[in-house]
Amino acid sequence: MNNKDKQMIYYKAKEFVLEAGERIRQKMHCPFVIETKSNPNDLVTEIDQDTERFFAERIRSEFPTHRLLGEEGLGDHVKDLQGTLWIVDPIDGTMNFVHQKRNFAISVAVYQDGVGEIGLIYDVMTDCLYHAKRGEGAYKNGDLLRPLSKEKSLAEAIVGVNGIWATENTRVHKEGIQQLIRKVRGTRSYGSAALEFAYVAEGIMDAYVTMRLSPWDIAAGMVLVQEVGGMTTQANGKAVNMLMTNSIVATNKAIHQEIMEQYITLKKY
Amino acid sequence: MNNKDKQMIYYKAKEFVLEAGERIRQKMHCPFVIETKSNPNDLVTEIDQDTERFFAERIRSEFPTHRLLGEEGLGDHVKDLQGTLWIVDPIDGTMNFVHQKRNFAISVAVYQDGVGEIGLIYDVMTDCLYHAKRGEGAYKNGDLLRPLSKEKSLAEAIVGVNGIWATENTRVHKEGIQQLIRKVRGTRSYGSAALEFAYVAEGIMDAYVTMRLSPWDIAAGMVLVQEVGGMTTQANGKAVNMLMTNSIVATNKAIHQEIMEQYITLKKY
Repeated sequence: MNNKDKQMIYYKAKEFVLEAGERIRQKMHCPFVIETKSNPNDLVTEIDQDTERFFAERIRSEFPTHRLLGEEGLGDHVKDLQGTLWIVDPIDGTMNFVHQKRNFAISVAVYQDGVGEIGLIYDVMTDCLYHAKRGEGAYKNGDLLRPLSKEKSLAEAIVGVNGIWATENTRVHKEGIQQLIRKVRGTRSYGSAALEFAYVAEGIMDAYVTMRLSPWDIAAGMVLVQEVGGMTTQANGKAVNMLMTNSIVATNKAIHQEIMEQYITLKKY
Repeated sequence: MNNKDKQMIYYKAKEFVLEAGERIRQKMHCPFVIETKSNPNDLVTEIDQDTERFFAERIRSEFPTHRLLGEEGLGDHVKDLQGTLWIVDPIDGTMNFVHQKRNFAISVAVYQDGVGEIGLIYDVMTDCLYHAKRGEGAYKNGDLLRPLSKEKSLAEAIVGVNGIWATENTRVHKEGIQQLIRKVRGTRSYGSAALEFAYVAEGIMDAYVTMRLSPWDIAAGMVLVQEVGGMTTQANGKAVNMLMTNSIVATNKAIHQEIMEQYITLKKY
């Protein structure tokens, strides 16, 4: 992907995201759309699919050689990372969407031959866009995000980790997560992986630790975190595999290894 | 407290809160104030104390017979709940204040002979005011908050609970909290007790469960939750004691008893 193409794809991706967000806001404010649904889960399913369809149509129309990997499966059957691949989560944080009507995001990434080139995370209800291009820094709306601290210790860190991983589960030994929760200054849980990545990039959380994320949950967030000097790996230290479910540690480099080595013991399954 | 007094106190309390919030925002945007502090904890301590002093002066000037119970200890030495008592947390969520520069609140309640008459929770950085008078409903800015659902089951509930209570601690047996986390639809943790009470009142969380809260963390939130038909008790079911530290379950009435009886086993200490 040459620089001119990248700028153009970024420009279009941003246009798509903002338009998709506006469509979602309009639907959420339309009583007819809300009330005809027998339950809120039907509403989110419809908006989720409609939004992914919107991206699929726009991408096919503007970039017919690009492929789309999306949560709702309305894109392509992606089995490799060759070429230009859009990775889209039309509504990240569906439980927040249903129960809170805020705190959810559109997550859009563009990868070239497996490398994240563009990442966009759009907090729809606050109209706040986190965006990054590889090698050009990360932004929150118009503000350049500062590099993450390299000196912060775990005892000073705010870590995004859901309490579920401190309970008996199939992915990770709960004892280590409990020790991590006790070790850090505080934990938070916001219910949207995309936003939690964005908060790490913004430096308002120092790490995000979670198991069982799909590519569309993390693809854009990884680009953002990378651009502020952070890193994202699987919880066993391996590189993230953008074609499967991953367990994830995303954080500033100061505490990445310590979290993985001292506190996370994955289960074999 | 007759109705006319209550309206006037409410009007003044709202005025104080909005002015205090504006003072905090100004200080946070002033580079001189920020940079002269050797570390962020000094900044929050100064703003915390300055804000409580502001309330103390205003209350003493306008209502010389009222007393003030505040986190920073700049009010009165309160040993009983007689008369009109203001209960103030100038910055609830100090860790968020320091690390996030948002997601903190001013919490102000007015109690008459132990009964919560007025509750105000002000999300300072979003300029969002949750407010309630006993018997007159609760509001988010200008919007009346709807009564909480009486039918929601625990399996459908979003519960605010920090992962720390799922780890070994001196207050509550961790096993029950772990079971609660696994039982509910999802958990969240936002790092401000006042805001988590406000979210329960708003219906975007269905319950808030936490140990070890001081009166100023909960006094305003209890009035809000009460006004939408929810309830707040100690985690052992007893009435909250506004003169000591409490463990807390605040929720809609549908799931209150089930949470307490099935999932919370307090430790003796």
